[in-house]
This record gives sequence, structure tokens and C-alpha cells, in this order.
Amino acid sequence: MKDLDGLDLPTFEDVIAAHARIAPHIRRTPVLVSEALNALTGAELFFKCENFQEAGAFKVRGACNAVFGLDDEQAKLGVATHSSGNHALSLSYAAGRRGIPCTVVMPRTAPQAKKDAVIGYGGRIVECEPSTSSREATFARVQEETGAEFVHPYNDPRVIAGQGTCSRELAEQVEGLDAVIAPIGGGGMISGCCLTLSTIAPHIKIYAAEPEQADDAYRSFKAGHIIADDAPDTIADGLKVPLKDRTWHFVSNHVTDILTCSEQEIIDAMKLTFKRLRVVMEPSCAPPLAAILKNPEVFRGKRVGVIITGGNVDLDRLPWIKG
Amino acid sequence: MKDLDGLDLPTFEDVIAAHARIAPHIRRTPVLVSEALNALTGAELFFKCENFQEAGAFKVRGACNAVFGLDDEQAKLGVATHSSGNHALSLSYAAGRRGIPCTVVMPRTAPQAKKDAVIGYGGRIVECEPSTSSREATFARVQEETGAEFVHPYNDPRVIAGQGTCSRELAEQVEGLDAVIAPIGGGGMISGCCLTLSTIAPHIKIYAAEPEQADDAYRSFKAGHIIADDAPDTIADGLKVPLKDRTWHFVSNHVTDILTCSEQEIIDAMKLTFKRLRVVMEPSCAPPLAAILKNPEVFRGKRVGVIITGGNVDLDRLPWIKG
Repeated sequence: MKDLDGLDLPTFEDVIAAHARIAPHIRRTPVLVSEALNALTGAELFFKCENFQEAGAFKVRGACNAVFGLDDEQAKLGVATHSSGNHALSLSYAAGRRGIPCTVVMPRTAPQAKKDAVIGYGGRIVECEPSTSSREATFARVQEETGAEFVHPYNDPRVIAGQGTCSRELAEQVEGLDAVIAPIGGGGMISGCCLTLSTIAPHIKIYAAEPEQADDAYRSFKAGHIIADDAPDTIADGLKVPLKDRTWHFVSNHVTDILTCSEQEIIDAMKLTFKRLRVVMEPSCAPPLAAILKNPEVFRGKRVGVIITGGNVDLDRLPWIKG
Repeated sequence: MKDLDGLDLPTFEDVIAAHARIAPHIRRTPVLVSEALNALTGAELFFKCENFQEAGAFKVRGACNAVFGLDDEQAKLGVATHSSGNHALSLSYAAGRRGIPCTVVMPRTAPQAKKDAVIGYGGRIVECEPSTSSREATFARVQEETGAEFVHPYNDPRVIAGQGTCSRELAEQVEGLDAVIAPIGGGGMISGCCLTLSTIAPHIKIYAAEPEQADDAYRSFKAGHIIADDAPDTIADGLKVPLKDRTWHFVSNHVTDILTCSEQEIIDAMKLTFKRLRVVMEPSCAPPLAAILKNPEVFRGKRVGVIITGGNVDLDRLPWIKG
């Protein structure tokens, strides 16, 4: 851990320690390829399938690193977070593996399937109203009552170090990568890529892909400071959250470019992945392939790692099928 | 190759030779697991993902073995088959890899997507009317005109030997299997499993799974002779074809049991696989999981290999979504 202007940031040593710590609890996910997608893009694409990860998302890496790094005394009090997405499932999974309490503050409007999954992993849900003020008040009460350790979905050095293990595996699994591309929401996965690849393979360019309708990271990147939107609206629901100071540090220092795509391009790339790679993934995973298809000149002839971030999708509402 | 009552049957040596012959042209597909599906079934399931295979189906193994086993003189004249399913794509793929002609006789009513895929791999389509008599007449004409080598979708010793490479990989990838289960249509994959496993791991029980609405293999198995249905109707469209003499030999000698399931059970198991294993597969791949869920006492506590046979599904018409 290094301290930069009062900001505790993870180092690559933290990634190595995280990897050893979480190895018994995560999967070394496979890398898949598709001749058809290579032909279509003119690039060689290597899809790192974190949709096959425990709890169906890469976020289990960061959550496990935070949970298994706690000392016994803190662990007894448990962990807590606010999330209605894959971090909620992942933290519940990690806490369940360690046998400690996990409390998740979730808007009462969150999908029942997500609530069920959190409970299925042994987590406890405390509902709040779907507003920032209610969430913050509810979370403060939970923390006061339980003494639980807060694990932020992405702006946490332990979480970023955990996510850094994904690109470490990818670089081991695929030789000679020229670039890696991942979706960007809060920037946890991209920060992990930056942290790891800037150390072990600094020649690999790092691209982030983002929905046009939630392009706060893109605009932040161009402006040189964090811009947070109030309520972005996109089908890629995992990518609505803004950058924070720690993820901004990595994004602003190590990302080559941020590429955006439309909602239709996201849906098309999602369907194309189902069809050609034959994997089930969330809309939030589709912007990288959409960006590659939209910017062929950037990726043509290159060996590109593409991180598929999660597989928890509502199969009754696939966006290309009109119900 | 051994000759049994005038029936040329492949041996395990043919499987070994096939594996060496086709290795440059196929993928060693990964095996995926799901804690959720294990918890649900009480078994340890290991899914061999042939939906990730070249051309999206295990049938590429048999097709490549047939195509690359031809001598140069015969190869020049090309190969031909009749199929509107994965064998058509697979034979076109194999012929394309060798650079020889491939003609596929297909009913004019076959889905355009299948026709496009055959053409995409370099195959030529000759259309016939959707009747057996038209198909046979058309195919005879094609063979006479081209001199092409006929490669049957499953009742061909070269094809059965090729399919036998799949369970050979599975047995290498997963230690201590107690059972293997695969769907049964014409019986090519199951025959390959019988051929390989009866030689290298005869303690592994082999189960076949079949739709109730196309249960000719089940009734054949119980009756002790081949029963062929006229026009079975099931969502598992790859499993409508009947057993033939070579596949019947393997099924009748080496299969432990054939288990059947309803259309709704097939749809439920298909959706469950999308949700929990996060892979895209065809309805024809779902009967094995449906059968395991329906007969838990057979599989509980066992290590079971489940072969997912193909991933060429119409994503606009997923059977659990009412369009």
C-alpha cells in the first residue's frame, strides 16, 4: 500500500498477496476465442470469462480479498455494503465462505432475483428507499448497530487489488497481448488492470468502454477531473456509478482511451456474444466488443484481451427480444 | 476397424488415430462446473462444453475425421451429406479446412440461418423438398454428378470414431468420473462414448437422455431392437433421428440406461443451464440435466460428466420467452 496525497493506494505487491489469499475461493476463469468474432473485427480477441466466476462476477475477487484480509476480531463483526448489483452477491459469497455476517443495504425496489441471491449466499438485506439520502442514513445505522467493516464496491484499495488478479491471470493465459479492454462504471476492474499491467506488462494498452448514456468516465477522462452524473440511464446497469478518487488515480494515469457506444450497439454486441462465443453475459459486459466493432482501426491486427465481467442477467428479459 | 456380422465398426485404435488426425482442426473444449447445479442435484456435475467447439457442435469431430481421412484422389471429388442440422455445418467446416468441395442436400424449408452458416464455411447447398423421397432422389443425383464421398451424420464408423474423442478428453480432464450422460438422437455421440469409455474406463456408466416426444431410442433399448418413429415432434430438434445399425450396436451393448423427459423439463433445464452455467446451448443439449433432475437417486453423490453437444440456437426464439 502506498500513500499518495493522503490516498491509500494498492500496489502490485498487494495484488500478489490478494491472489494468494483468494485463490481457494475463486475460479481461474477460462479464456475463450471465436474465429467468427476475429474475422468480424480483424483482431485476435481473447475473452476472459468472469461470467463463469463464483457468484457470476469478477467482483468476487475484490470482495474475497477484503473479507479474507480482515483480522479475526474485525471479521467477527462482519462486513457491510450498499449495492443492488454484483458487489452485493460477491460480498455475501465471500462472507459466507469465511462464515461471518454480511449486511447489504439495498433499495426496496431492487430486483427480487438479486435479493434472493444475496440471501442464498447467507447475506442479510436491510432495505432502504431508492434515494441517496435514505441509503446513506440506513447504511450509517447498520454500521453503528453492527460495527461491520464497510467494503465499498470499488473505491477501496483491497477491492482494487483483488480485481487486479483478473488481468494477472489473463496475462499468464494469453501470450503477447497488445491491449486489454474492459467496461468502466466505477472503475474497479479497470483500476485493477492498470495496477497489474502497468507493472508486469506496461506495453499492453488499456482501453475502457462505456455506454454513451452513462459516459461520465469518458467526460472525466477528457476533462482531466472527475465528473459524476446524477442519474444516468442505460441498459448496462452495472456501469451507472461514477469514478471515485482511487479509481480516478488509476484511470487518469494508465488508461490509453475510453470509447463509448450507443444502447443499440450494446444490445447488438451482447447478442453477438451469445451467438458467436455462446456465453451468457450481462448488458454491462457488452461495451468492449461494441467499442471494438465501432473502432476497428484501433484494434485491427492486435491481440486484445476482452474482460467479460459478469453473467447475472435476467433471462426473461433479453433486450433483443420484444416480450 | 473390426467387422461384426458384416458391420464395419470402429475400435478404440480408430479413436486414437482420429484424435491425432483432427487435433489441428478442433478445440479441446473446457469443462465447466456450477456449485449451484451441484447443490440442486446432489451430484458433482462436469459439463463438457462442445457448444464452444468449432462450428458450435461436437459433430465437427466426426466430420473432420471423415474428411481428413480421405485419400487425395477421393478428397478431390469432395464430400456430401444430407442434413439440416449441425452435421451440415460441421462437414462444411471440415471440407473448408481441407480445401475440398462439400455439398449438402437440405430441405428448402430449412432455417435460413443454417443455410447461411453452411455457405459461410464454404459448403454448397442443393435444396430438396421436405420429404424423404425428394431428399433421397436429390442426394443420389448429387452423388452421381460429383462422385463425392457420402458422410452420414452418425451411422459411419469414421464419424463414430471422431465423436469418441470427446469422452476421451473428458476422462482426461476430470478424474474419477462415475458416469457420463449425453443426449441421444441418432446415437453418434453416445456411440463414441461407449467405444471410448468401454475401453479406457469400463467402470464409468453411460446414460443417454431423450425427449419423451422422440423416445424411439428409449423404446428400442427396452424392446431390444431398433424402433424408428415416423415424424417425432420435439423442441430438441437435433434428437429426432432414429438409431441405425452401427449406433444400435454400441447403445445396446454399453449403455446403462436411457432416461426420458418432457418438453417442459427440457425447457426448464435449458433455462437453468443458461442461468447457472452461463452458457448458450441448444434445446437438444438439455435432456441430460433434465434427466438428472428427474432421477436424483441415480446420480446423487456421483461424479457425472454431462456433454453439452452444441450451441447453435435461435436467440430470437428462446423457448421460455413468449414472443
